[in-house]
Amino acid sequence: MEQTHSTAIADTVWTNVNLITGELADQGLVTAKNQSVVVKDGRIMAIFDQSSGAALPQAERIIDGEGGWLSPGLIDCHTHLVFAGNRADEFEQRLEGVPYETIAKQGGGILSTVIATRSASEEALLKLALPRLDALIAEGVTTVEIKSGYGLTLNDELKILRVAKQLANHRPINISTTLLAAHAVPPEFKGKADQYIDLVCNEIIPQAAEQQLADAVDVFCEGIGFSPAQSEKVMQAAKACGLGVKAHVEQLSNLSGAALTAKYQGWSADHLEYLDEAGVKALAESNTAAVLLPGAFYFLREQQLPPIDLLRKYQVPMALATDFNPGTSPLASIRLMMNMGCTLFRMTPSEVIAAVTANGAKALKMEESRGIIKEGMAADMVLWDIQHLAELAYQFGPQVIKQRMVNGQITGSGAHV
Amino acid sequence: MEQTHSTAIADTVWTNVNLITGELADQGLVTAKNQSVVVKDGRIMAIFDQSSGAALPQAERIIDGEGGWLSPGLIDCHTHLVFAGNRADEFEQRLEGVPYETIAKQGGGILSTVIATRSASEEALLKLALPRLDALIAEGVTTVEIKSGYGLTLNDELKILRVAKQLANHRPINISTTLLAAHAVPPEFKGKADQYIDLVCNEIIPQAAEQQLADAVDVFCEGIGFSPAQSEKVMQAAKACGLGVKAHVEQLSNLSGAALTAKYQGWSADHLEYLDEAGVKALAESNTAAVLLPGAFYFLREQQLPPIDLLRKYQVPMALATDFNPGTSPLASIRLMMNMGCTLFRMTPSEVIAAVTANGAKALKMEESRGIIKEGMAADMVLWDIQHLAELAYQFGPQVIKQRMVNGQITGSGAHV
Ligand SMILES: [Zn+2]
Ligand SMILES: [Zn+2]
Repeated sequence: MEQTHSTAIADTVWTNVNLITGELADQGLVTAKNQSVVVKDGRIMAIFDQSSGAALPQAERIIDGEGGWLSPGLIDCHTHLVFAGNRADEFEQRLEGVPYETIAKQGGGILSTVIATRSASEEALLKLALPRLDALIAEGVTTVEIKSGYGLTLNDELKILRVAKQLANHRPINISTTLLAAHAVPPEFKGKADQYIDLVCNEIIPQAAEQQLADAVDVFCEGIGFSPAQSEKVMQAAKACGLGVKAHVEQLSNLSGAALTAKYQGWSADHLEYLDEAGVKALAESNTAAVLLPGAFYFLREQQLPPIDLLRKYQVPMALATDFNPGTSPLASIRLMMNMGCTLFRMTPSEVIAAVTANGAKALKMEESRGIIKEGMAADMVLWDIQHLAELAYQFGPQVIKQRMVNGQITGSGAHV
Repeated sequence: MEQTHSTAIADTVWTNVNLITGELADQGLVTAKNQSVVVKDGRIMAIFDQSSGAALPQAERIIDGEGGWLSPGLIDCHTHLVFAGNRADEFEQRLEGVPYETIAKQGGGILSTVIATRSASEEALLKLALPRLDALIAEGVTTVEIKSGYGLTLNDELKILRVAKQLANHRPINISTTLLAAHAVPPEFKGKADQYIDLVCNEIIPQAAEQQLADAVDVFCEGIGFSPAQSEKVMQAAKACGLGVKAHVEQLSNLSGAALTAKYQGWSADHLEYLDEAGVKALAESNTAAVLLPGAFYFLREQQLPPIDLLRKYQVPMALATDFNPGTSPLASIRLMMNMGCTLFRMTPSEVIAAVTANGAKALKMEESRGIIKEGMAADMVLWDIQHLAELAYQFGPQVIKQRMVNGQITGSGAHV
């Protein structure tokens, strides 16, 4: 499958590939058959239509795609994958009928994850995060966003972000980090949420920015999270420090959190089951991505569907992500989310493919560099052993990755990280 | 992790393992900590409690389980994994709003799978089935049931069963085959279902039995399938030929198909969303396993839940399976079914573990030889890298298989088949 040439100009040329560019047009995904893609210095240098008869540049490596589909590397734009502790026992207790109050009194719920994460070393957290990340990589993920939010102190939040960034030294992956100190009120601030928000805004956000540990700041705006007023303070602090704004909104109720996120030119508003038309319009006007999280919807057995038709109508970019976390989405599978996007949310296969490529990049403000196969973009690509594009959303289980590339480096087929 | 001894007696000894026997008792799964398991000639020769101080026999190979959990190999007792054709395009059309009638007129639906499967060679079918089987094996499946049902002629049904049996020559797996000629009325018998049932009963079932290609016979008893009277003929023919009886029943409506299955001492009644108390009692009296298929429930967005509480009350053995098939459950993941068994059907983690071990074996009438870790049983086992048993049902994605054994042969960790 590979040949080596001397007097190299390009690093790699992919030949005989059908391109899924990642972009979504009125007619569906933008695709192009029988293309060649030239890679140099980690970027896409050129794309040739093979029928043009143009001579390909010489390259260190030629990969014959054998007519397979080449897509952008997948982007999981919303995860919480750095944490310690294990909530399998809590899952079991709930299914065995133990009341939630009893579990909470035993120290269950998010608090148990916070306590375990606070007492874990960076090394221990890294070791726990790697198999979760490996599961995503094996499915073709080349970029992953990771949020803090289980530390809830200055030191522990920064510790989580440092671990998240270190993962890129251990695996072929691009990492985007998000500070989610405003995930929950920590136990030592019980009944004093406003004081905790002051700590978040005055110390944790500025320190994360100063130490360049976070690309964006997130907040859980919800009845059981932080109020819109508290959330707005967090967004203002993020903007003041030059960080991107993201928010968990409209998951369990409608607090107009999406409109608030739009007001601060948020990169994304996430969850959105209870989003209304005014919120959709606000997202459209601010070009904020809608990040849909069907794993949490499934795991919590929610009934309220996000307003997909309205998001389509106002052309809000829809992204999909795993929301991998121990409490509400212990599902480290972007491919499963693609199937759930179709099955549960009635998105089309084209929409779910764009949702984990071009639109995933928009949710991370990476659309200038990743998520699309185009000249000048980073060379993050996956070659798929499929006949029909829709297979990526339709079928789940069989290994269909033939080859992966991250920043121009070949990293092997799916099962071998 | 492994040591070699001379003057061998046993083939393999697993030491330092915690056992999940696969059996379910009133208090949950039967487990035993700090055990050693001795394997010889493909079977479990002895189990020692390490605290007993008993000397272990010498062995060719000692595997230190390092305190991990050792369970029976997983059993997927209901699949349709041998077929040709691709229904991803149909999946896409439906999500894009093309009416079902239009798709059917284009030759979509089960008919398209039948046409493609009839024209495929055994070699082609084998090649298509292997990646599906590999996905299951990578999750710890050591026994899989495979149904025919996309041939619907004597030759094509037997062809599918031959391919299903051949898979065991290519992979470390136990295969149970089921003749499902009564899956649908083939196009050439349109409007003549009774005549087709005569063909099934008088030719296909006897030939499958004669050629020892099927362990059991299955029938799709449903308004859109075969009537109870037609289904009963199939069951009678199966019994007459000495084959086991299984049936797809009560999936979309209640035709009392489970009671009918019980009348013929069926090995299992499968689907069961519309099963009523009389049906549950009938299954209990005939010791017929209830095979629950949450993948199809999820994929079809069904609302009617199977009567788990009644199945518990009458102590009907509950099994779980993928129902992997191109039309209603293109999900080749037993671990996902375990999560869905909990999340969608509210089964407990203990129940779903028993459902893919001891009770999966019951659904295949293999309970005397597989599905439980016990002296004399086949040595099909998986060593898991988990702290809490419930993790097998709770979390999805990260690789947690440390080692697998099929019929006494070590077959490697999960990612490498
Ligand atoms: Zn989240
Ligand atoms: Zn079936």
